[in-house]
Amino acid sequence: MRPDHLTSTFGALADPTRRAILARLMSGEASVLELAKPFDMSLPAISKHLKVLERAGLISRGRDAQRRPCRIEAARLKEANEWMEQYRRFWEASFDRLDDYLREVQQTAKGKQHEPKQ
Amino acid sequence: MRPDHLTSTFGALADPTRRAILARLMSGEASVLELAKPFDMSLPAISKHLKVLERAGLISRGRDAQRRPCRIEAARLKEANEWMEQYRRFWEASFDRLDDYLREVQQTAKGKQHEPKQ
Repeated sequence: MRPDHLTSTFGALADPTRRAILARLMSGEASVLELAKPFDMSLPAISKHLKVLERAGLISRGRDAQRRPCRIEAARLKEANEWMEQYRRFWEASFDRLDDYLREVQQTAKGKQHEPKQ
Repeated sequence: MRPDHLTSTFGALADPTRRAILARLMSGEASVLELAKPFDMSLPAISKHLKVLERAGLISRGRDAQRRPCRIEAARLKEANEWMEQYRRFWEASFDRLDDYLREVQQTAKGKQHEPKQ
């Protein structure tokens, strides 16, 4: 189950318009019409993106036949975030290495200041 | 810059083999040959996946001409993780709502226990 979720979640997120739609939905539900306006896109283009997001489970749509408002569904984002968290030690380790390096550079610089002038 | 990074990062992660390669690289560097073995894939197929991961900046390859060992590069994963974190309040809110609901169900059940028997 999980690998397929992750594939469809990451696939849906691999598009700037779809990420922008999710960002817009952070401030509340919106209909297709409301979503299309700021994006300056045709309704069919927006609808296509919404279908990808809906199929990936990243949004759901209300029952109101007129508006069918879209809203964020967070469970799949949570799952993808958890997958990513496994790699946290890598990015934390690389920042630790940078810290060590900077400390070393600083100490070398200090050492040079204390060297007797010739 | 950032949106393009995110698109290529999520695009690279939208594949179970590429995610499995990253998972293997968590336990240390590996050459293409070493990576191909457990995956039971042809070298060209593995190489193609490695190219996608490398282009997305998720791995880098060593200079040793023979092995060119692959290793995880965490900066892009960190960036994608940060993007995802914006949505944390949504998944936390949905679990809070579940909590409220369960508390309500529990109290209704308790209330029923204390009702006088007829």
